[in-house]
Amino acid sequence: MLTREENNRLTRTGPTTPLGKAFRRYWHPACLSRELPNRDSPPLRLRLLGEDFIAFRDSTGQVGVVSNRCTHRGADLFFGRNEESGIRCVYHGWKFNRHGQCIDMPNVAPDIGERIKPKACIRALHVEEKGDIVWVNFAIDPGELPLFEFMTVPKEHRVVSKKLQQCNWAQAVEGGLDTSHFSFLHAGYQDGEKVGLHQLGSIENRRPETPGTARFRWLVEDGAPRFSVVHHQAGMLVCAARSADDDQLYWRMTQFLMPNHSLTPGNLPADTALCNTWMPIDDQKCWIFCYAWHPDRPIDDKERTRLLSGSGIFADVDENYTPVRRRENDYLIDREAQMTRSYTGIDGISEQDQAIADSQGIIADRTQELLVQTDLGIVQFRRLILDACDDTEKGIEPRGRNSPHAYAVRSGDYVGNAKQSVNDVIERRFGDKAGQFTDVS
Amino acid sequence: MLTREENNRLTRTGPTTPLGKAFRRYWHPACLSRELPNRDSPPLRLRLLGEDFIAFRDSTGQVGVVSNRCTHRGADLFFGRNEESGIRCVYHGWKFNRHGQCIDMPNVAPDIGERIKPKACIRALHVEEKGDIVWVNFAIDPGELPLFEFMTVPKEHRVVSKKLQQCNWAQAVEGGLDTSHFSFLHAGYQDGEKVGLHQLGSIENRRPETPGTARFRWLVEDGAPRFSVVHHQAGMLVCAARSADDDQLYWRMTQFLMPNHSLTPGNLPADTALCNTWMPIDDQKCWIFCYAWHPDRPIDDKERTRLLSGSGIFADVDENYTPVRRRENDYLIDREAQMTRSYTGIDGISEQDQAIADSQGIIADRTQELLVQTDLGIVQFRRLILDACDDTEKGIEPRGRNSPHAYAVRSGDYVGNAKQSVNDVIERRFGDKAGQFTDVS
Amino acid sequence: MLTREENNRLTRTGPTTPLGKAFRRYWHPACLSRELPNRDSPPLRLRLLGEDFIAFRDSTGQVGVVSNRCTHRGADLFFGRNEESGIRCVYHGWKFNRHGQCIDMPNVAPDIGERIKPKACIRALHVEEKGDIVWVNFAIDPGELPLFEFMTVPKEHRVVSKKLQQCNWAQAVEGGLDTSHFSFLHAGYQDGEKVGLHQLGSIENRRPETPGTARFRWLVEDGAPRFSVVHHQAGMLVCAARSADDDQLYWRMTQFLMPNHSLTPGNLPADTALCNTWMPIDDQKCWIFCYAWHPDRPIDDKERTRLLSGSGIFADVDENYTPVRRRENDYLIDREAQMTRSYTGIDGISEQDQAIADSQGIIADRTQELLVQTDLGIVQFRRLILDACDDTEKGIEPRGRNSPHAYAVRSGDYVGNAKQSVNDVIERRFGDKAGQFTDVS
Repeated sequence: MLTREENNRLTRTGPTTPLGKAFRRYWHPACLSRELPNRDSPPLRLRLLGEDFIAFRDSTGQVGVVSNRCTHRGADLFFGRNEESGIRCVYHGWKFNRHGQCIDMPNVAPDIGERIKPKACIRALHVEEKGDIVWVNFAIDPGELPLFEFMTVPKEHRVVSKKLQQCNWAQAVEGGLDTSHFSFLHAGYQDGEKVGLHQLGSIENRRPETPGTARFRWLVEDGAPRFSVVHHQAGMLVCAARSADDDQLYWRMTQFLMPNHSLTPGNLPADTALCNTWMPIDDQKCWIFCYAWHPDRPIDDKERTRLLSGSGIFADVDENYTPVRRRENDYLIDREAQMTRSYTGIDGISEQDQAIADSQGIIADRTQELLVQTDLGIVQFRRLILDACDDTEKGIEPRGRNSPHAYAVRSGDYVGNAKQSVNDVIERRFGDKAGQFTDVS
Repeated sequence: MLTREENNRLTRTGPTTPLGKAFRRYWHPACLSRELPNRDSPPLRLRLLGEDFIAFRDSTGQVGVVSNRCTHRGADLFFGRNEESGIRCVYHGWKFNRHGQCIDMPNVAPDIGERIKPKACIRALHVEEKGDIVWVNFAIDPGELPLFEFMTVPKEHRVVSKKLQQCNWAQAVEGGLDTSHFSFLHAGYQDGEKVGLHQLGSIENRRPETPGTARFRWLVEDGAPRFSVVHHQAGMLVCAARSADDDQLYWRMTQFLMPNHSLTPGNLPADTALCNTWMPIDDQKCWIFCYAWHPDRPIDDKERTRLLSGSGIFADVDENYTPVRRRENDYLIDREAQMTRSYTGIDGISEQDQAIADSQGIIADRTQELLVQTDLGIVQFRRLILDACDDTEKGIEPRGRNSPHAYAVRSGDYVGNAKQSVNDVIERRFGDKAGQFTDVS
Repeated sequence: MLTREENNRLTRTGPTTPLGKAFRRYWHPACLSRELPNRDSPPLRLRLLGEDFIAFRDSTGQVGVVSNRCTHRGADLFFGRNEESGIRCVYHGWKFNRHGQCIDMPNVAPDIGERIKPKACIRALHVEEKGDIVWVNFAIDPGELPLFEFMTVPKEHRVVSKKLQQCNWAQAVEGGLDTSHFSFLHAGYQDGEKVGLHQLGSIENRRPETPGTARFRWLVEDGAPRFSVVHHQAGMLVCAARSADDDQLYWRMTQFLMPNHSLTPGNLPADTALCNTWMPIDDQKCWIFCYAWHPDRPIDDKERTRLLSGSGIFADVDENYTPVRRRENDYLIDREAQMTRSYTGIDGISEQDQAIADSQGIIADRTQELLVQTDLGIVQFRRLILDACDDTEKGIEPRGRNSPHAYAVRSGDYVGNAKQSVNDVIERRFGDKAGQFTDVS
């Protein structure tokens, strides 16, 4: 439970807010590379942390993310022309390059223009394109991009997309740090009982039961996992242990990386890895960027198609990346299905997460809640974010800001002897005490 | 004419307002019983006096009306599962019964859960189901349900429904207390003159003219009825006398029952009786509950179908009880019809009332108006409501709150000698000086 | 660049604002005559300077523009009956004539009605119908209608219409005073270069090149015209000179007439003349009234059809005068067209103007801008408007208010020797130093 003031600090990201200032120290995903498909292709509207920008790919292939307002009389550069290495306002032809410099002012006599141009530059964010994502940094001194694994694998090894979440970023993150809800929100349902998704339908579906499928049964059989948290330089590893068969424990370990990334559990060593970034559009909605990758092999067409049409953390989205099942249509909840085969009656893991986060309100009221042991990751997340606000106010760099290598971590599942400590489990699963992957120094 | 402050007191019903506190002492209709058709059927969203709830019918058939927010982390129980005698949050499985008690907390170890559960209860309103309506009371000490006649007749003798009104509750009530508008708003039109509805079309329609049809002519012939008001324990009887034929008077007598009910005139002793409740959803819109009943006989299928498809006080509504003719489409006003056969050009008595109330604004500005003698009922209504605010502020129970039997009244029409006093007329029509019906002690 | 306070003074027109008070001294177009096609035709909703009215044409053919609220209980007279020389409220039959006088009160006894009627009058604006436009004046002492030329020519010589602009009035006016943008916003595009519209397509389109077509080339060849402003009694003449062929100058001269009219350049002596009025609906949107006329000849059916279907200052509008290409659909911008044949990719001169004005925001932020020499007309416009605010506050009539004859001016284009002074150019083009046309005394 937070005070009203703490809740405001946690959720507000505008330019004058404490968290807004902290967020503006970090790199953030602004859009997908494929939203700017070609050199000189049309500019793209972006709203980032409550501020309006446009993105464009210039004639050299480089991306600019600049204020959407022409400095002359405020016309929207979205309607502009993406011409030879710059965006040109269609009102009077002022042209700006990707660094925001005014490089042409054709309604002004040349000598006067040269004098005015330096005053006419527009705000430009630092931009790097990596992992099929356009990253931006609001700071003057941007520092290095965090070293996410998905950015370092060959392009064929990864799939990225995004989806709109129609509520504040923080409650959506909290859903991602709380694997305990998997026992309920994502359960199947049959004959009046929760069942693992692999148990739905005929008995044949259940055999042979591997750890990969038995997990779904363990998830529903133990709804009160025991949480522990291990902090590290870029964030924390949130570990939750459930009873498995034969006195073993089934561990799900989630990475939270400052300030708004999470590596999803649910993967055993051979599985595809998953990560999300929750990027505030403004305080009422956010983009959830979705990354899937495999360190060792390409993601084949079948899996790629399955992910991009909505599977796991990927949603079934329309051409604007808005989920087909969304707030306005109650996520197409099917009450008959809810009684017979699905705990929620809502199709899709992603859509279930999205529905329940939206349902907490546009901005969840954390002054009214009753946290329990399974909310440990959430409590620690809030602490990390509020600390980042405090640090930034004091002029200290917030956690992770200057530690790009600390983002080279993995999340994942583990099944093993109940006697092992959480530290043993982490080292056995990842070969490192923070989940760092080994091919990074 | 009211001061701005009085207008606010009259119209605002949120939990912290004077009227909001007064309203929360009374029983109110929350929904139709048929909106919760079966045991364990899906929960229903309710907004009552600006607060959000869900309603559900549990496995025993009893209805609960509870806060829509799970006490754990605020997820919306609308998405919940209506299971064995309780609504279960789909986020982490917390379950609440219809009294708001938390009866399961499966993400918490059992011993800890038992300790936390008492703190986890959610707000639950008192609920009674009667007359095919789910009634709620916000007070700790709800008292008895008011004894409306429609609730006491056999089920086959009544028809109930509801319709959305897209403005503040109070101006909609005022329309119901002002039978003088019947001479205009609900008139027919032919050859440049108002005519009774029975006079439209061919001359055959008009013969034979009974008191039941002649009323429509008297209504348009005398647009300035003389009003008098008789107060009683639960509200007041608003009586309006118009000239009829042969020196007789045609009386229309409306019951207003605190704080938001009205028994509609327009019925001679053998006719079906009608009543409305204006229940604020919030201060910008309200549900109008509609009750039709006959003390002595069933309402047959033909009349039932006619009422439910929109007739008299019943509107032609869609599956969400939103009128087909509504604010957004200017009530499908037909200007050609307005010139040739209908005073308004809007189809339906209910829709005409709704249109004109909406047209006064979302919340009517009563600081600008010019009341006349036919507004006597309206003036007295405001007095009753403002008195209820005052009383509640002083800790006195507002009128009618503790007098359920005083709601056992009737409204109705009467035609008789112009010499009779209003008190004589009331006693002759109803056999009682307040309109109480005789089979109630 | 303005201070925030100046920007508010320039843009806010509600009844209590400085500009709102100044505006209410002038005559304004309220609607098109054809929106009230017949005597006793249905009333029309009007929102003017943030206040709500209805307009109706009475049985004598005269137009009334009156408050939309019945004085009795505030019902909306839009739903009223337009009957024998008055609008009648359908709630209780109160009737008002076009002067706002209450002329019937049928729910009140006649003697009392006579006493109350004088108190029951509704607000009525002064109305004059001229030039196929219904003009209104909010002042008690309206003064004379300004003598626009289009109102004085025979009906067959003119075409009038209107179109919705989805932003504040002032930035839309500013676009009309800035002919420099014609070099960009309205340019054609071919082979990577701006071209005159007549140059698009095959070489045949360009021959023979007359001054009427060569203008389009001059417009794109000189994007930095030299501005000068000549003030006169009703406003100012904004003159912009561009290099033409053979050391000549191509002048475009725009009339701005207080407080919200502009006569458009782009016409040589034989061409159809054009004028706009930007009439605030409220501070977020305005009607742009469009007038085309020819002093010497009728506008033939072909030109009339072309204008009314969207050409030049006329937009392609739907039945509600809302442009087909508008804010919600990004003006149907065609990015492919933007690369190959149109500077903007938006179809229509009017739609290009509208798009760029909207793009400055709902109300443009003039505290952030960088004005240059071509913005001279805009700077002077702001000065005139802020002076009108000041004058009105001091009880001085704002400029033009009492000078109806000073509105008898023309705008237009001129091609001539570069040595001529602006005053010479004006006299040669118009025969008058302020652009007054000669057949007005």
